Amino acid sequence: MVRSSSPAPSERSRVRRAPARADYDRATIDAILDEALVAHLGFTVDDQPYVIPTLHARIGDEVYVHGSTASRMVKTVGAGVPVCLTATLLDGLVLARSAFNHSMNYRSVVVLGQARYVEGDAERTAAMEALTERLVPGRWAECRPPSRQEMKGTQMLALSLDEASAKVRAGGPVDAAEDYASDAWAGVVPLRLTRGAIEPDEQLRDDIPVPASVEAWVS
Amino acid sequence: MVRSSSPAPSERSRVRRAPARADYDRATIDAILDEALVAHLGFTVDDQPYVIPTLHARIGDEVYVHGSTASRMVKTVGAGVPVCLTATLLDGLVLARSAFNHSMNYRSVVVLGQARYVEGDAERTAAMEALTERLVPGRWAECRPPSRQEMKGTQMLALSLDEASAKVRAGGPVDAAEDYASDAWAGVVPLRLTRGAIEPDEQLRDDIPVPASVEAWVS
Repeated sequence: MVRSSSPAPSERSRVRRAPARADYDRATIDAILDEALVAHLGFTVDDQPYVIPTLHARIGDEVYVHGSTASRMVKTVGAGVPVCLTATLLDGLVLARSAFNHSMNYRSVVVLGQARYVEGDAERTAAMEALTERLVPGRWAECRPPSRQEMKGTQMLALSLDEASAKVRAGGPVDAAEDYASDAWAGVVPLRLTRGAIEPDEQLRDDIPVPASVEAWVS
Repeated sequence: MVRSSSPAPSERSRVRRAPARADYDRATIDAILDEALVAHLGFTVDDQPYVIPTLHARIGDEVYVHGSTASRMVKTVGAGVPVCLTATLLDGLVLARSAFNHSMNYRSVVVLGQARYVEGDAERTAAMEALTERLVPGRWAECRPPSRQEMKGTQMLALSLDEASAKVRAGGPVDAAEDYASDAWAGVVPLRLTRGAIEPDEQLRDDIPVPASVEAWVS
């Protein structure tokens, strides 16, 4: 079972393990990136890799991250070193009849490449808007836009999706033939990121209601 | 506000950004690692970092991951190169009165170091048990243990927690003084990984009920 109709964009971005789970279609890649609320960005300093959780937002063919101008991540990644951005969604625990065949259902994207500093007010503001809208769609219009000073202290980095791959596992457990006679229960426990009860800020004025954007939020 | 009573275990594992959110206490680190269902493992091949989502399990002072003997991850990481294992729990969206002060509540752990191959049947089996129990506590006793052949194709890797750090953001938005007069709503949308309706395997015998371990599962 080969999921993907597109080939791997490069040899190094080809999925090695369980290649039947690979998917190089941009529609699959985009959907995963757009749903995940956190990405993990990997970069190497003095042979030591660092993997940092970060908010990300896709605009077209690039994924944006941001950080303080002073941060090691921004300075290192902005200098154009090779990076890897990975986003993972957990969809379920896959409980098989044997310990060995336990697994997880997930959708993940791995993006390889070199990031660029975003230059110019228009693109920088668009990236900031996309990063805010990622949290709650509609939020950008509800809050104060960034000041010149706030934008000055923030760097936006863009990473092309040219070398992106997705990997997807879905469905029930796959057991060895002889295990189907087992008395062990088998199945899937679906997982989902859900919203708890909204917590208004302690200093919020009593006359400000929860906006519809927040009420409507689903991951 | 400094959260931690312990110092950073090494200069390179010291949290740079927002150091007030750093926590080097093992109790904090262990709790995050033990709750997270996925970690992201970073390693470098030919200057290119790769960040791979993987199941992990902590036993004492080490965190274990596993993979196929043939996988690039296992071969690279098992050779003793520097790695970084990061686990992140999302706790909430932090919606401020300004776009700039939007944030997320999260708990993350970053572990730096070099992994070792786990040798010997006893420790290898203990690691496999811990990885199975991570999915659903009690699951190991309910399913068939790994065969000699299954264990032969699997490598277990252990990474010491000697160079681990945690970073935690909690609480409501922190706005600029002048923004508190704003009409914008502000607050936190808590996030939680929750269980959906259990899906028994299509080939499950009708007389096998969902075990209490699975019914009781909470992330």
